[in-house]
Amino acid sequence: MDSIKIGIIGMGRIGKIHLENLSTRIDWVEVVAVVNPSKKGQDYALKFGVKIMSDDINVILENSEIDAVLICSPSDTHAEYAIRLAGAGKAIFCEKPIDLSLKKAKEVVAKVKEKNVSMMVAFNRRFDPDFAKIKREVGNGKIGNIQNLHIISRDPAPPTIDYIRQSGGLFKDMTIHDLDMARFIMGCEVTEIFATGSCMVDSAIGETGDIDTATVLLRFENGATAVIENSRKSVYGYDQRLEVFGSKGMLQVKNPLMTNVTKSDAQGSHSDVNLNFFVDRYKVSYLNEMQSFVKALINEYPVPISGEDGIKSIVLADAAYTSMRENRPIKLE
Amino acid sequence: MDSIKIGIIGMGRIGKIHLENLSTRIDWVEVVAVVNPSKKGQDYALKFGVKIMSDDINVILENSEIDAVLICSPSDTHAEYAIRLAGAGKAIFCEKPIDLSLKKAKEVVAKVKEKNVSMMVAFNRRFDPDFAKIKREVGNGKIGNIQNLHIISRDPAPPTIDYIRQSGGLFKDMTIHDLDMARFIMGCEVTEIFATGSCMVDSAIGETGDIDTATVLLRFENGATAVIENSRKSVYGYDQRLEVFGSKGMLQVKNPLMTNVTKSDAQGSHSDVNLNFFVDRYKVSYLNEMQSFVKALINEYPVPISGEDGIKSIVLADAAYTSMRENRPIKLE
Amino acid sequence: MDSIKIGIIGMGRIGKIHLENLSTRIDWVEVVAVVNPSKKGQDYALKFGVKIMSDDINVILENSEIDAVLICSPSDTHAEYAIRLAGAGKAIFCEKPIDLSLKKAKEVVAKVKEKNVSMMVAFNRRFDPDFAKIKREVGNGKIGNIQNLHIISRDPAPPTIDYIRQSGGLFKDMTIHDLDMARFIMGCEVTEIFATGSCMVDSAIGETGDIDTATVLLRFENGATAVIENSRKSVYGYDQRLEVFGSKGMLQVKNPLMTNVTKSDAQGSHSDVNLNFFVDRYKVSYLNEMQSFVKALINEYPVPISGEDGIKSIVLADAAYTSMRENRPIKLE
Amino acid sequence: MDSIKIGIIGMGRIGKIHLENLSTRIDWVEVVAVVNPSKKGQDYALKFGVKIMSDDINVILENSEIDAVLICSPSDTHAEYAIRLAGAGKAIFCEKPIDLSLKKAKEVVAKVKEKNVSMMVAFNRRFDPDFAKIKREVGNGKIGNIQNLHIISRDPAPPTIDYIRQSGGLFKDMTIHDLDMARFIMGCEVTEIFATGSCMVDSAIGETGDIDTATVLLRFENGATAVIENSRKSVYGYDQRLEVFGSKGMLQVKNPLMTNVTKSDAQGSHSDVNLNFFVDRYKVSYLNEMQSFVKALINEYPVPISGEDGIKSIVLADAAYTSMRENRPIKLE
Repeated sequence: MDSIKIGIIGMGRIGKIHLENLSTRIDWVEVVAVVNPSKKGQDYALKFGVKIMSDDINVILENSEIDAVLICSPSDTHAEYAIRLAGAGKAIFCEKPIDLSLKKAKEVVAKVKEKNVSMMVAFNRRFDPDFAKIKREVGNGKIGNIQNLHIISRDPAPPTIDYIRQSGGLFKDMTIHDLDMARFIMGCEVTEIFATGSCMVDSAIGETGDIDTATVLLRFENGATAVIENSRKSVYGYDQRLEVFGSKGMLQVKNPLMTNVTKSDAQGSHSDVNLNFFVDRYKVSYLNEMQSFVKALINEYPVPISGEDGIKSIVLADAAYTSMRENRPIKLE
Repeated sequence: MDSIKIGIIGMGRIGKIHLENLSTRIDWVEVVAVVNPSKKGQDYALKFGVKIMSDDINVILENSEIDAVLICSPSDTHAEYAIRLAGAGKAIFCEKPIDLSLKKAKEVVAKVKEKNVSMMVAFNRRFDPDFAKIKREVGNGKIGNIQNLHIISRDPAPPTIDYIRQSGGLFKDMTIHDLDMARFIMGCEVTEIFATGSCMVDSAIGETGDIDTATVLLRFENGATAVIENSRKSVYGYDQRLEVFGSKGMLQVKNPLMTNVTKSDAQGSHSDVNLNFFVDRYKVSYLNEMQSFVKALINEYPVPISGEDGIKSIVLADAAYTSMRENRPIKLE
Repeated sequence: MDSIKIGIIGMGRIGKIHLENLSTRIDWVEVVAVVNPSKKGQDYALKFGVKIMSDDINVILENSEIDAVLICSPSDTHAEYAIRLAGAGKAIFCEKPIDLSLKKAKEVVAKVKEKNVSMMVAFNRRFDPDFAKIKREVGNGKIGNIQNLHIISRDPAPPTIDYIRQSGGLFKDMTIHDLDMARFIMGCEVTEIFATGSCMVDSAIGETGDIDTATVLLRFENGATAVIENSRKSVYGYDQRLEVFGSKGMLQVKNPLMTNVTKSDAQGSHSDVNLNFFVDRYKVSYLNEMQSFVKALINEYPVPISGEDGIKSIVLADAAYTSMRENRPIKLE
Repeated sequence: MDSIKIGIIGMGRIGKIHLENLSTRIDWVEVVAVVNPSKKGQDYALKFGVKIMSDDINVILENSEIDAVLICSPSDTHAEYAIRLAGAGKAIFCEKPIDLSLKKAKEVVAKVKEKNVSMMVAFNRRFDPDFAKIKREVGNGKIGNIQNLHIISRDPAPPTIDYIRQSGGLFKDMTIHDLDMARFIMGCEVTEIFATGSCMVDSAIGETGDIDTATVLLRFENGATAVIENSRKSVYGYDQRLEVFGSKGMLQVKNPLMTNVTKSDAQGSHSDVNLNFFVDRYKVSYLNEMQSFVKALINEYPVPISGEDGIKSIVLADAAYTSMRENRPIKLE
């Protein structure tokens, strides 16, 4: 069997992670081209023996040897690149979101369907071993019928105001992961959303028109509810917990800590802070995600997260904004 | 100093707990009379040297020696007894709720004010050492400004359908504790409530018109939100957790377990179920609550939970019903 | 059935605990007499309706109505009282140790046997729900064959030097509990002991000739080893842990904490100190122990901890001293 | 600055780990040669761009460009290779043990000293973030004076009988890590050792003359004691814990688990098994260890674990055998 030939567009933080995983930990695959505007990103790829380096996406589009392409460039370029790659018949791995605009995202998905190529949207958290285990256990009926889901997702610190401005807002930038996770765990669709949000972390965020704190309540087809709590700042580190309650029990994901050291003294027992950086917290998820993409290509079965999943998370984030603005629950078809 | 003389109306489960605490663990107090319809309850009081035993409340109302009276009889008698006791000038300790009807509860509070007697409403959980510590830490600014509060409150098993029928419904029977706890921790008032409820535990509960599962979202004057999750049935035991997130940290109350034994085997590590019975879980809270009532009487300062607090919890429970019925957030003045 | 009539000698801390448990929580039993040198201790007994109060043990010895007697007086009086009570045909509940001297303890046990009375030695920790559960699980083969046992037993703070002087030394005062626990959990006898001890907490303890820190290694008939670690001072509170490792798994007893509150902040997560006082830590064990004694009397079956058990713990403590002094393992027959 | 040029002898499990770390995660270093008897191991090195591949150690010895060499070949070859490498003036990184024989290990250390080359002995656990944090906290006086150290070290399953036969026995194969760790944490030397051992896991191990279960008690210059518990088989996974108790507190290393998922059901709460494989458990330690070696070479300061450390662990393991055989404590000079 020939190995899958891969191109990567964008050699930023996430592009580098995928390149390292593909080059040293995944079999039957070869990264043959990297496209990045700066020389520095290209140089990084050298370490892993990538042969084609360019600042021009055409070296990928026009290279018939390349089977699949990872879009790891800035969010506002995803849709355009995806449409061009679909046109060139490449399988696509697209970092989230497909686009901030639902309309544009739908165009991408339509094009992908028209050209009959695979497109996977990179909700990496689905591949985290903890969340994946929850999904399996729920699916196997280990806790019976789900009644409540609770997701807590807090960043260690807010991004820059510049980042906030182009982020699409909290619901599309942060909550979107949790909305996808809620759908993933529940295994059915949201019927109604009620969202509240406020600016409690940094008034500069509020001045951009965005929020930094949110509580979102979802109802699902199966009758269960889910609550998502978000904050742009958690002083004790990256907080990524999930708890699902059912008729036969409860499953919880707890936060991994920086170390497993506990100190006991006259004030009590003290354990470490949470892993603080999403790249550390979700390290394994990125590897598993990429393995899953490659495995689907090799075995020619559907990618595990479709463009449709990408669309649904955007629809939910949009509905969250409407709900917050109008202070009422919003129904979803 | 003379000791406080106390009468108790009702020698059911909760009356017995208060009697034992007052008799053997609290100083400067004496239980002199117990009123209970059955002889069996009266006999229990004998063990603790109570001298006056009757099935007639007048032995208390007409006994000028008695300073304070505990109302531990069924909920639908609370209002009537409270009004008569206020009329007789007795200090009152009233189990929750004052009454299922807001109107009647307000009459009680008005009468208590008119007669200028003390009335404490028994939200015992405020005196639980864990929750009380959270309140202290929040009050001392240990976690900065509160942004989110999360209360999980699940019973180990639903009560009988007969109990359900006369309970006033989930919001007034179960959630009312959590509504009071949320106000207690936040230290300010609720401005808006959005409640969802459903019947997921037992369809027989649904047939009475009640719900057994609820998720309630509250907004507070300080801009923070709170989420309450309730269920009538948790297979892993009584689940009473609270988590409050602020700008400087997070505080959590975890469930006490039946034992502190952990077993590790080829399947993992296994710890015990939660304490299963509210009397065990809140054992210390009942003692602390009663000590707090007696201390207020002795020192002649206000009781720690007023009739007004009792009213506010009923108002919130009523608003939760309206919100659920009309599927919209309800504002509170 | 008539209730068991009980006398208590000594109304110190432990005598009071037993009196309260017998009077308010145990059925079919009545405390009829309390002997205590001071009036204050006698007054305490009044609260629980005890009728005979005296500073003279003869009110108990000569009262034919009394079935059983608790010896809760200072350690150096245990042997004498036990012998006299056996002579009077009373069932005996004797606080540990029977006597600091093995010879005298053996005389007591011989007398008890001669007079054919019951004598229970009060190793209360066997009745702690956590340790009792470990014993049950081990007995049921839940962890297979035991290979290692580990007991950590540390006091929150050393007693007074006066107490140290009359205590019999660390091995007879503290370690004796752990030696009994090790025999209890293992379900077989010690074959060899190797003990080390030193003075690391307070040099004033060393000046009395005693140690305050010890590590003891035991070998058992079943081939397993046990390690006991003792210290007179643990800054994080009373430390009472046990861990037993077997071919099919491991069982652990963890310390109960003052509260179940955890705070997370920029330094990590902080939980409370251990319960700090042996009376709180072993509260339930005292009740269960007394219930077990009463139950044995009522049902006329052997008491759960015999005089022989008391002897064996003294033999082991004596052997620990020899081992430490001679720096060699000591065999036991 | 030129990068350090490195050769690796042995491309087994541990050689591969070092190669991957050196190639992709450590700066200023280049692996230029790999020596391995089989072609397969050599092929693995190709992935990381290694240029010289051979089954002959002379390609390293005779290559003047190579600054440092990792000895990752079978234990019985360590001494010979180390002596030849020292002769060739190479800095050496030697997997533990230097040799099973103390005499031969001393010859190696003598040669290294004579030739004035660096030699680091690979006790990787010192570089584990958890154990390293304990060392730092102890060193900073965070828990005051150390009084007790407790190390539990159990393998998930015994190795093959063939491996056992050539391992040097439990004390030299397993306990040696814990003996080094005890010296590392204490920061002073062992003065006396008392060791017990038995065969409780598999009688086939006993038939080779080896043990599979051990409890070892150490005394240190600072007056503290340490206990090491070893077993060749732990059904709940790789068990690597450490607890150090001092005058101001206690530090503990807990086991990392396979996942951070907990399930609660009617039987209690269930968390995952321990990480099961030493390569996963100590993954980060291997990286940190290698970084530390490279950093010492670059900065020309002493390597963090010397040949002398390697000698001392062998001396202690030998003394453990003597103690077990003669059933007495053995003094060390």
